[in-house]
Amino acid sequence: MQALSYIEAGKVDVSDVEEVAPASGEVQIEVAFTGICGTDLHIFHGSMDTRVSRPAVIGHEMAGRIVALGAEVEGWALGAPVTVVPLDWDGTCPACLAGNRHLCHNLKFIGIDAPGSLQRLWTVPARTLVRLPYSLRLDHAALVEPTAVAVHDVRRANVAAGEKALVVGGGPVGLLIAIVAREAGAEVLVVEIDPYRRELAESLGLRTIDPRTEDVTAAVTQWTAGAGAAVAFEVSGAAVGVTTAVDAMAVRGRLVLVAIHGTPREVNLHRFFWRELSLIGARLYHRSDFERAVDLVAGGVIPVAALISAVEPLSSGAAAFELLEAGGVMKVLIDCQS
Amino acid sequence: MQALSYIEAGKVDVSDVEEVAPASGEVQIEVAFTGICGTDLHIFHGSMDTRVSRPAVIGHEMAGRIVALGAEVEGWALGAPVTVVPLDWDGTCPACLAGNRHLCHNLKFIGIDAPGSLQRLWTVPARTLVRLPYSLRLDHAALVEPTAVAVHDVRRANVAAGEKALVVGGGPVGLLIAIVAREAGAEVLVVEIDPYRRELAESLGLRTIDPRTEDVTAAVTQWTAGAGAAVAFEVSGAAVGVTTAVDAMAVRGRLVLVAIHGTPREVNLHRFFWRELSLIGARLYHRSDFERAVDLVAGGVIPVAALISAVEPLSSGAAAFELLEAGGVMKVLIDCQS
Repeated sequence: MQALSYIEAGKVDVSDVEEVAPASGEVQIEVAFTGICGTDLHIFHGSMDTRVSRPAVIGHEMAGRIVALGAEVEGWALGAPVTVVPLDWDGTCPACLAGNRHLCHNLKFIGIDAPGSLQRLWTVPARTLVRLPYSLRLDHAALVEPTAVAVHDVRRANVAAGEKALVVGGGPVGLLIAIVAREAGAEVLVVEIDPYRRELAESLGLRTIDPRTEDVTAAVTQWTAGAGAAVAFEVSGAAVGVTTAVDAMAVRGRLVLVAIHGTPREVNLHRFFWRELSLIGARLYHRSDFERAVDLVAGGVIPVAALISAVEPLSSGAAAFELLEAGGVMKVLIDCQS
Repeated sequence: MQALSYIEAGKVDVSDVEEVAPASGEVQIEVAFTGICGTDLHIFHGSMDTRVSRPAVIGHEMAGRIVALGAEVEGWALGAPVTVVPLDWDGTCPACLAGNRHLCHNLKFIGIDAPGSLQRLWTVPARTLVRLPYSLRLDHAALVEPTAVAVHDVRRANVAAGEKALVVGGGPVGLLIAIVAREAGAEVLVVEIDPYRRELAESLGLRTIDPRTEDVTAAVTQWTAGAGAAVAFEVSGAAVGVTTAVDAMAVRGRLVLVAIHGTPREVNLHRFFWRELSLIGARLYHRSDFERAVDLVAGGVIPVAALISAVEPLSSGAAAFELLEAGGVMKVLIDCQS
């Protein structure tokens, strides 16, 4: 069975791997599509070699259909379209016991710490499944997982209708956050240096600003009649992204930290004190975020077609990584059946 | 009339100043006691010379009695014991209009930007007054203002009963936060390098730890059975205080930033992401915080007598600053009538 494996920094390989029959409590999914995300790229760059045991079948932004049921799996039918919450928690650590299983101290992420969905057939625990409408295209449904990230981030921000929200970073997650925040009633401004991404955002009706040619703080001050942004999302991962957000925020503003900052950043804590700002970490999602994401994708709120730049066959899977490395694309999917 | 003025870095002076008769809407207070706080010391060190116009009568942690009423002041009687919310907002800026008047963009702090309470008679707007019980000693009531700071900070943390709270920094505000958090049902651990402060905290029934001889993260891990602290208060103002708090926090922990950090600090944002931590700025107070603080002081929850290290007469006001500079004291009051 065909699968894409991460081999070493800069190298993925498509080869035959053994099919895993579903054990008790598991199901086997015929994976239709898998999107490549920032974490997959991190792995591809070798940045997670200490965590990922190689060769590693990666991928987790997926949609597919159930093709085999293990023993003691109830409530699921063969052929049912599904996506997966790729989280495996221990259920016993302090975070799990406090109800934050997605932040389990010993969380295993399926697709990083266990085989992922970049293969023709994928076997996962049935409890990870999320039901998809039969009417939803499976290429579109591959965007449910990143949409769930955005839903979680917007929930963490507690966005209220009428609030002005700044999204720093206009990649796939940034644009999804912008769209989900807009759906929650916010007015959104996307800060993005890349002209391709700005143009795509504008085509989706989002207001954008280029921080290299415009003063973001001044623009936000004008946009908000002197108040500053009530909410900001840091999705750039850059040190300057944090500064930009902090400087642009209103009194009592909430800054949701979405991007991964590998090294400590200098933060203007005086501003946090002076304006009573909040910095709110956001990671992954709950099942309820996935369920909301399915509704948003199936309901047409998420402009999935516009966000999918290319679909590559699994047989030439490395091409998808090359496309992303070259830039000028938004979301790239891999067709896991061709 | 005798008043203490800040002259220049390291120098305060007690001299005669003109009494200010209360205008319409104002009252004149015979100030009984004024505590010296960290901000007063900042001013004394010359750190706020760009903001403070000199000579400046400073001070704002006070209690006294009304001795004269201006025109159109209603609801207040001569002799009534009062303290003051020393804030003067414009009421028209975006922060005021959003209901956050204590964070007014053009806030004037009475005692920094306008004459303070280190004088025998102090004239302030009647709307700043907070009623004190006649039964409450006025030296004790001088601690209502710093207690209001602590009430505000604990409210910002949204402390729940049974939570474990770390207080980094055991000065007057740190200990008041610890006591108010304990009253809210939290179990508290105070991190403090100074042995005098640790001993005083222990005498108030607070658990303490010396970060110079013990590993705070390890101690908190053990104290919380592996979870980490649900809440932390950064009251030290030191870079290492921020690191200590961030490293010790549980999943979804809330870190309230109380201290003023004059320069940007390196913050481990990855930890904020990974554990979904929150950083919450806290500044000043609302009137409701003062009202709660009056109840806590009058009700005996705040061990005011133990926190007051010395009372110096206004006539030798510089002595109070010298005591604080020498260390080994907690709260120092000035008796404004002698």
